[in-house]
Amino acid sequence: MDYLAKLPRVFQPESVVVIGASNNPDKLGYHVMKSLVQGGYPGRIYPINPNASELWDLPTFPSLDTVPGDVDLAIIVVPAQLVPGVLEQCHKKGVQGIVLITAGFREIEDPAGASLQERVREMADGWSLPIIGPNTFGFVNLTTTLNASFTPEFSLVPKGGVTLVSQSGGFCHLSAFRAMEENVAFAKIIGLGNRCNMDFSDILPYLADDPDTRVIGLYIEGMDDPRRLLDAAGQMRGRKPVIAYKAGRGETGDDASRFHTGSLAGRYEIYRGAFRQGGILEVGDTEELLDTAKALDSLPPLHGNKVAVLSSQAGPGMIACDICEACGLRLVEFSSRTQERINELLPPLAIRTNPVDMGPAWYSPRAIIGIMEAVIDDPNIDGVVFLAMYASANVALGGEMRKYWEERKPSTKPLVACFSAPSPIWTEDVKLMDRTKGMVFLPTPERAARTMGNLWRQTMLVRNRRQNG
Amino acid sequence: MDYLAKLPRVFQPESVVVIGASNNPDKLGYHVMKSLVQGGYPGRIYPINPNASELWDLPTFPSLDTVPGDVDLAIIVVPAQLVPGVLEQCHKKGVQGIVLITAGFREIEDPAGASLQERVREMADGWSLPIIGPNTFGFVNLTTTLNASFTPEFSLVPKGGVTLVSQSGGFCHLSAFRAMEENVAFAKIIGLGNRCNMDFSDILPYLADDPDTRVIGLYIEGMDDPRRLLDAAGQMRGRKPVIAYKAGRGETGDDASRFHTGSLAGRYEIYRGAFRQGGILEVGDTEELLDTAKALDSLPPLHGNKVAVLSSQAGPGMIACDICEACGLRLVEFSSRTQERINELLPPLAIRTNPVDMGPAWYSPRAIIGIMEAVIDDPNIDGVVFLAMYASANVALGGEMRKYWEERKPSTKPLVACFSAPSPIWTEDVKLMDRTKGMVFLPTPERAARTMGNLWRQTMLVRNRRQNG
Repeated sequence: MDYLAKLPRVFQPESVVVIGASNNPDKLGYHVMKSLVQGGYPGRIYPINPNASELWDLPTFPSLDTVPGDVDLAIIVVPAQLVPGVLEQCHKKGVQGIVLITAGFREIEDPAGASLQERVREMADGWSLPIIGPNTFGFVNLTTTLNASFTPEFSLVPKGGVTLVSQSGGFCHLSAFRAMEENVAFAKIIGLGNRCNMDFSDILPYLADDPDTRVIGLYIEGMDDPRRLLDAAGQMRGRKPVIAYKAGRGETGDDASRFHTGSLAGRYEIYRGAFRQGGILEVGDTEELLDTAKALDSLPPLHGNKVAVLSSQAGPGMIACDICEACGLRLVEFSSRTQERINELLPPLAIRTNPVDMGPAWYSPRAIIGIMEAVIDDPNIDGVVFLAMYASANVALGGEMRKYWEERKPSTKPLVACFSAPSPIWTEDVKLMDRTKGMVFLPTPERAARTMGNLWRQTMLVRNRRQNG
Repeated sequence: MDYLAKLPRVFQPESVVVIGASNNPDKLGYHVMKSLVQGGYPGRIYPINPNASELWDLPTFPSLDTVPGDVDLAIIVVPAQLVPGVLEQCHKKGVQGIVLITAGFREIEDPAGASLQERVREMADGWSLPIIGPNTFGFVNLTTTLNASFTPEFSLVPKGGVTLVSQSGGFCHLSAFRAMEENVAFAKIIGLGNRCNMDFSDILPYLADDPDTRVIGLYIEGMDDPRRLLDAAGQMRGRKPVIAYKAGRGETGDDASRFHTGSLAGRYEIYRGAFRQGGILEVGDTEELLDTAKALDSLPPLHGNKVAVLSSQAGPGMIACDICEACGLRLVEFSSRTQERINELLPPLAIRTNPVDMGPAWYSPRAIIGIMEAVIDDPNIDGVVFLAMYASANVALGGEMRKYWEERKPSTKPLVACFSAPSPIWTEDVKLMDRTKGMVFLPTPERAARTMGNLWRQTMLVRNRRQNG
């Protein structure tokens, strides 16, 4: 039995042991228990601790061999030198996989750390035992409400189809906290840590088949062999979008990576080449990764590069046009039928062609919704960037728009919107519309337009892949 | 008396009339009254409306000539064709300046709009009467709590030293709403609209002397003569930072601008040259404008390009290093004294040189604060990028850090931080520290590092200016 076959039971286990469970908040074993229990994991939880009979209202076991029945996943939070012995017990118990939170392996300056990791790897490889980590926070499976990490707050991330696989736990925390603010919805967040025997290329085949994962995000610092990632991505044959963010692009980053996860970040150009060949969509910062993942998870594909920019105020529309053009999107003419409908709804005061300045109708939700509807239905248009700033004088827009979309069937074209309003009059309207019916909402016109541009890049990646077999 | 001498009384008036005041929420004259009254303007407010005796609990006047005493500012919200007559009355009354909210001038397709604007401009020029607008939301002076706009929510923007001057009202609204979320603090937000006789170059000399304005942000679509901006910026002699965001960089934007505010956006390269020569810091998006303005308003100058990156997690630190390097910042060695202090506080597990991976001490606020203190005090270091993601297991960091800074004297070096935490455990700690004692907090490591890079660009602009006389 190879690693891959075991991964479904690792990420969706029926039972979890915590080796090093604790009721002391200064210990990570406490926070792991809190994550499992408060996160609402529905399976069996077995805390292992020889010095306690009960933890978190659960009976505690002195050792792994005293646990009744099968164990799918073991979360290990004991000191590094105890790990080989614990792994031996896990193997004997028939555990399917490990989350090894413990640090002190290849990432430390002392070469004893690297030796210990090598020893652990050899043991695990002999048993085909997948290890997430060491030196990781763990992972969270939001679909099954399994929080196998030392961060209980991961359970608060919105649930959806994005799976993040990351070499940095800090990046996972940052992404999760931003996701809570900006409504990016995750299936899983996985911290690879030192990648003992589970690297990006080992996880990707599992995620390719994982029905909960619709979009894969990778945060990469450095790999021993970037070509393995290329191969793994290639084997996915474009079935799911893969987005990659490569850190350690400069010299300092290289140094930091060597210490952090024990591998050279390597020449950035090598990674760029691998991304291109592997059909992987590269992004340049955290917000772009999250925005793009959110859009790819929630929107229909952008079938062509002909977009419309509709803006309730001309300025944000110009901003969006700049970015659209830079991204290779084309602001094409509307069909004559669409143009006629717009002309009926807008006075002959402003620009009524694409980009549409809806300024003269900014106080009229009816006109704005009518224009949007006409443009979405236009066969010349592949996607719509929709912008509106609203406050006291045009406050009705959010509610009227929400009502419209409640009754309308989902758009078959992607609609990327920036609706900005001050929090006091901000209703739940935008939050209720976000990620529904073919729409996502982003915080600025630039981010909305750039995200539409990335939908187009993704479409081209898929086409190139098909053309090249 | 020229325009410039009148502007202090326009932006800090003792009395305001609203010509077109209304109690009908469908009218902009209603929202202007709401802004003035609910915004807490402490001066005299005179609503002008021949059909009402009282509006917003204030006695109403049938016409401007029946208003007792002097009037500094007139806000006009009557239909376009009535504007010339109203201006005549304003002149007779000795009004110092106008906010002309009314639309239907040079921005409309009908050439009658341009003719009307030209007629208005000639009248106003004859009387040296400054007009903000037409086709504007107005302005807000947060320092004096004067909200002279149709958006009451502008009064909720944090108060500080940033003044935004914008050709787009939509951009002002977007910026204000983002500022509320991200704690960017404004002195004034001014919508230039069609720039009848008040353009960027007319406002800049006033802002150069305005004690409330410490940083000036410009949102520019197109000007008839970009060289006038260069001259105005040059006359400021680097006394205050000026940040510019140019929209309409592509072809579509040019078209949109012509319709929006009646001027060609013009070749982007011409503007870039003017910014460079004028010592203006150019930025590329809304978030960058706001982040940079926030930092320049609240931080001491960055005197050199030697920075430290301190991160509680290695990944975000690598991300920041990438951006720092790309911005020309140097991650230099610490002094031996600093290095010794760090070595005492961090175990020999991780990278203790610059960038510092504080990972092994991430649960210890004491160690993290000690490292930060040592680095801030290091004579080799000009500025510090400080990153921390925190949740359940290291939740104490925010509170401990705040306590430390409450007692410490302000840093004389800029500290740009990204502290990210999930909202449920997010306390007021970060909000209380933000913009105090030489620190600002931004949402991502990229934005923190890029902002530090822009502090360095600003320092170099000031130096170049001094060298060139």
